[in-house]
Amino acid sequence: MVGQNIMRNLIVHTPSKPGNLGKVTTVIGAHGGDIGDIKTLKVGTLTTIRDITCTVEDATVLDTIVKSINALGNGIEVRAISDDVLKAHEGGKIHMTSRMDLHSIEDLRRVYTPGVASVCEEIQRSPEKASYYTSIGNTVAIVTDGTAILGLGNIGPVAGMPVMEGKAVLFDQLAGISGVPILLDTSDPDEVVETVKHISQGYGGILLEDIGSPHCFEIEERLKEDLSIPVMHDDQHGTAVVTLAATLSACRYAGVDIKDAVVGQIGLGAAGLAICRMLMAYGVSEVYGTDPQESAVMRLRQYGGNVLNSIEEVMAHCDIVIATTGVKGLIDPSLVREGQIILALSNPYPEISPEDAIAAGAAYAADGRLVNNILGFPGIFRGALNANAKDITYPMLVAAAEALVECTRHGDLVPPPLDHNVHKIVAKAVERIALKEMVHEG
Amino acid sequence: MVGQNIMRNLIVHTPSKPGNLGKVTTVIGAHGGDIGDIKTLKVGTLTTIRDITCTVEDATVLDTIVKSINALGNGIEVRAISDDVLKAHEGGKIHMTSRMDLHSIEDLRRVYTPGVASVCEEIQRSPEKASYYTSIGNTVAIVTDGTAILGLGNIGPVAGMPVMEGKAVLFDQLAGISGVPILLDTSDPDEVVETVKHISQGYGGILLEDIGSPHCFEIEERLKEDLSIPVMHDDQHGTAVVTLAATLSACRYAGVDIKDAVVGQIGLGAAGLAICRMLMAYGVSEVYGTDPQESAVMRLRQYGGNVLNSIEEVMAHCDIVIATTGVKGLIDPSLVREGQIILALSNPYPEISPEDAIAAGAAYAADGRLVNNILGFPGIFRGALNANAKDITYPMLVAAAEALVECTRHGDLVPPPLDHNVHKIVAKAVERIALKEMVHEG
Repeated sequence: MVGQNIMRNLIVHTPSKPGNLGKVTTVIGAHGGDIGDIKTLKVGTLTTIRDITCTVEDATVLDTIVKSINALGNGIEVRAISDDVLKAHEGGKIHMTSRMDLHSIEDLRRVYTPGVASVCEEIQRSPEKASYYTSIGNTVAIVTDGTAILGLGNIGPVAGMPVMEGKAVLFDQLAGISGVPILLDTSDPDEVVETVKHISQGYGGILLEDIGSPHCFEIEERLKEDLSIPVMHDDQHGTAVVTLAATLSACRYAGVDIKDAVVGQIGLGAAGLAICRMLMAYGVSEVYGTDPQESAVMRLRQYGGNVLNSIEEVMAHCDIVIATTGVKGLIDPSLVREGQIILALSNPYPEISPEDAIAAGAAYAADGRLVNNILGFPGIFRGALNANAKDITYPMLVAAAEALVECTRHGDLVPPPLDHNVHKIVAKAVERIALKEMVHEG
Repeated sequence: MVGQNIMRNLIVHTPSKPGNLGKVTTVIGAHGGDIGDIKTLKVGTLTTIRDITCTVEDATVLDTIVKSINALGNGIEVRAISDDVLKAHEGGKIHMTSRMDLHSIEDLRRVYTPGVASVCEEIQRSPEKASYYTSIGNTVAIVTDGTAILGLGNIGPVAGMPVMEGKAVLFDQLAGISGVPILLDTSDPDEVVETVKHISQGYGGILLEDIGSPHCFEIEERLKEDLSIPVMHDDQHGTAVVTLAATLSACRYAGVDIKDAVVGQIGLGAAGLAICRMLMAYGVSEVYGTDPQESAVMRLRQYGGNVLNSIEEVMAHCDIVIATTGVKGLIDPSLVREGQIILALSNPYPEISPEDAIAAGAAYAADGRLVNNILGFPGIFRGALNANAKDITYPMLVAAAEALVECTRHGDLVPPPLDHNVHKIVAKAVERIALKEMVHEG
């Protein structure tokens, strides 16, 4: 089969009657398509949906095959064509699963009626027992309005759902947390806050996700104030935790004490501002930031940061420079000063490549390829839930960053994201601080 | 171990330091408690929570053991005592589970960033593809405000959560549906409708559950009108479907054609009214109802039903009598007429026992022990989701009831609830009608 080099999965609808699959496979074969696995996705009364793996010579052949299948008529139709990545998302990536199997009427009587009534009454008498007899304390709502999905912008919550499901996958796999996507049809802060508050009793925590700027700030602040469960906007504080960890690692390699250093942030979007606040919370005495948007600069001043007027000023003034602008090649190598630490974190293209920065005299430079939020939120929420924390505070976030540094192998900026031990260590560090804070309050 | 006859599970918190479990188990042993399995529920930084199975002679001994453990001090404490039923609910009954395991960075790149971006873009271009590449089309929100939990009344949504989790267990186990509990902190119809609408894009359907009367009527009607996904209040229509099935089975045994019969409903709560509407939708020409509440009677008139003024009138006038009042022994055997069919469905105590009704001359009589909602909602939603139905209509509900009758073994009123085949047959019947209705509309 020389030259056959693209593999795709055809999602084919056929009427649920014998003979139709034969017609489809015959057409594929007639055009030289090589059929692999055929998976039945759904058998309905009238329509059957199958996923047919098909290897063909090139895109033209694929196109011909699809047209020929559709030409069969009588309800036979190719509805979608998945590649390897799309295939991994077929049917969605998450499912609300029963933790027990029902084998007998006795099982049913225990977990459903009439048994369940006594569990309800127990919680009615002692509301704190909901943490033993329901999943609430181990469940985090993953809330988005779809306005800032990845780098794709305002594509809406449904198109953003694959990201929310991805977060739920990571919660489950890395921290044993039940993550439930909540897709909001509104971005109005009043409506978002009201809606989340109305449903908040069902969760042990709220992860705000891919909510755009500037409404993300107001939404998070109001929810943190009004709710007595942990609330965190991941694109702000999750990113800031992992960035602080990477910066601390970089300082270690360059032999610099960050608290005495002058740190400059280029780009004051949600992530950039949160990084500035995290650095201040960590105890860095001089934190500067720059951004062309006046509103962003105002916000930095409100949070207690110092403003510089340009990238040139930041490069001239700061020992450590962190960039999160999303603009490839923004930092000209001629601006780099001898001995600077430069973290150009935009993905997939950094503001300056580590090689160029080092060649221009930087003591240490890195890009953001490995600086991934995955390292933050699962352990942070695990720790907060374990402690029954009422809030996620800066000391808890700093503890998470320090735990990440502790787990980082020499030469790396951050630890490997799928190492379960890393998430456990982060969780323990967060829990320890949360419990300490609660003792102080109590 | 003669006389040891109660088994309980002690949920014990101890500081996470060696030696504490020894102290606890020593105390249990010293008082004659027999220790079974010990399960670690949570190991936190400071506190470990264990479930210790313990068999003791009687409640007094158990009490002494609990007091002695608590007397150990230093943070050692029995926080809850589970029996067999409570134990089945420990940690909650559901978990949002990843459908794939993450083994490598390659997996991560496929299901999360950067791969997920192409899936989001695909859905942005063709929104209907969300049904292939997300879990939305297979997910049903289980929405409650906690105002009418089982027979317990208005105990709040958190105390009602074990029931919502139970529904999710049944969705998963019987229909492969991902059921997500939504606990509302408001019962105001405007707020409920607004909140559910704001989050509705994340679901393929909405199951309203244990929402009290009369606000349940307005909430369901408005949501059905405003949303283009199936919405069903289970306590109304799920109950009515299973009741219609039971009534059809009873008619078969008594040799009566229900469409020509005079049917009377005693009790016009949410379930009773829905049963009347379902009977009318099925084609029963004469449907009567009675209830002491004027508002309930008014509602029945609005729906096109006829009103009678008392139980006596219903018993005197109707061939088939259905009672759902929750009042034990409400129907005096002296009121039963020769040849009547009597379904006294209140649980656990019927309005008249089948034995008494038969002895008084009824042609057929049954109570509600086996008439369980479990038989309805899983298959109804499976069928509606399979068809991508925009609504749940009376013809779909009637089809579900007829499918249940078809699956009922001779002598029974309804089929066994854990028979997976039953739910498949209900789903197919519902899907078939849904598709037929959509073709008519299209």
